Amino acid sequence: MSGDRTRPPADALDLRAHIVDLPDHPEPGVIFRDITPVLAHPEALASAVDQLTALTAELGVERVIAAEARGFLLGPALARELGAGFLLARKPGKLPRETIAVSYELEYGTDHLEVHADLLPPGTRVLVHDDLLATGGTAGALCSLVERLGGEVVACSFLVELGFLGGRAALAPHDVHALVRYDS
Amino acid sequence: MSGDRTRPPADALDLRAHIVDLPDHPEPGVIFRDITPVLAHPEALASAVDQLTALTAELGVERVIAAEARGFLLGPALARELGAGFLLARKPGKLPRETIAVSYELEYGTDHLEVHADLLPPGTRVLVHDDLLATGGTAGALCSLVERLGGEVVACSFLVELGFLGGRAALAPHDVHALVRYDS
Repeated sequence: MSGDRTRPPADALDLRAHIVDLPDHPEPGVIFRDITPVLAHPEALASAVDQLTALTAELGVERVIAAEARGFLLGPALARELGAGFLLARKPGKLPRETIAVSYELEYGTDHLEVHADLLPPGTRVLVHDDLLATGGTAGALCSLVERLGGEVVACSFLVELGFLGGRAALAPHDVHALVRYDS
Repeated sequence: MSGDRTRPPADALDLRAHIVDLPDHPEPGVIFRDITPVLAHPEALASAVDQLTALTAELGVERVIAAEARGFLLGPALARELGAGFLLARKPGKLPRETIAVSYELEYGTDHLEVHADLLPPGTRVLVHDDLLATGGTAGALCSLVERLGGEVVACSFLVELGFLGGRAALAPHDVHALVRYDS
């Protein structure tokens, strides 16, 4: 799609320049990648949405699903650009109607997410989204939820991928797309 | 702005038809207004963003600020359409860099929100956004935060207003805009 453009695309903007690295946060040896400056910068925000849209524009996405809270930041904007709807995955007890739930393992303990069961008709083509791919626990749980409801996961997309944490392999065989990848 | 359009505007879509009313939730006599079907429906999502954009398109908004988690749903999409950036207001301890915090009263107890202090330059024109206006506690706290950082609150905008809870008066003298208003 971008090959047809005759002017420099807005998505030429380098998002990495807007991500703030915090060494030794939250613990020694770990670099925290803070994306809040991407959101705060008008051109970076627009470019992030445009670039995420371009990654999956050809997949016939009908719904984007993402988990609170940070998945909500770009998920609905992405859904809107793709001509799709957005499904909220929330912590237990936050959604008021009948839900279907999934549990998934964290480094220490277990977490849970719920979606409104009636908002994902069987056969729907779903994009799983989050701001950041680490080990793939949250995104994998969302893939499971979608498939239990009879939906089809067409891909997973992320603003940032921490490539050294193995999330891409954990999400196989689903396709994984990310705009900014860190290898250490 | 919409008066200049020569075709039926996309924002003619009636969002109220996509909001699900849940009587006696979470307690007898209260009607819960569930907006998740607005998000899930592609045309309703697009129209909600377009209509919210139209409400404040002439105000020169430079940043949109909203609180987790539900304020994140439409805040960044709205910011993007307005040509603005988006500021995250989060629960304490979630933002990794230097923050400024605000406390505000709830019906039972006190809540707290934080923003990254460096992302709001003094003099910035800020739109305060949330999905729903009830008593105005959260939005009022965001107004205070913006003003403490030297920003200018140009308006507050909401998808839904529960008009009988007095939020509009509580936010005075700030202008309040809402797409769908309930009076009971």
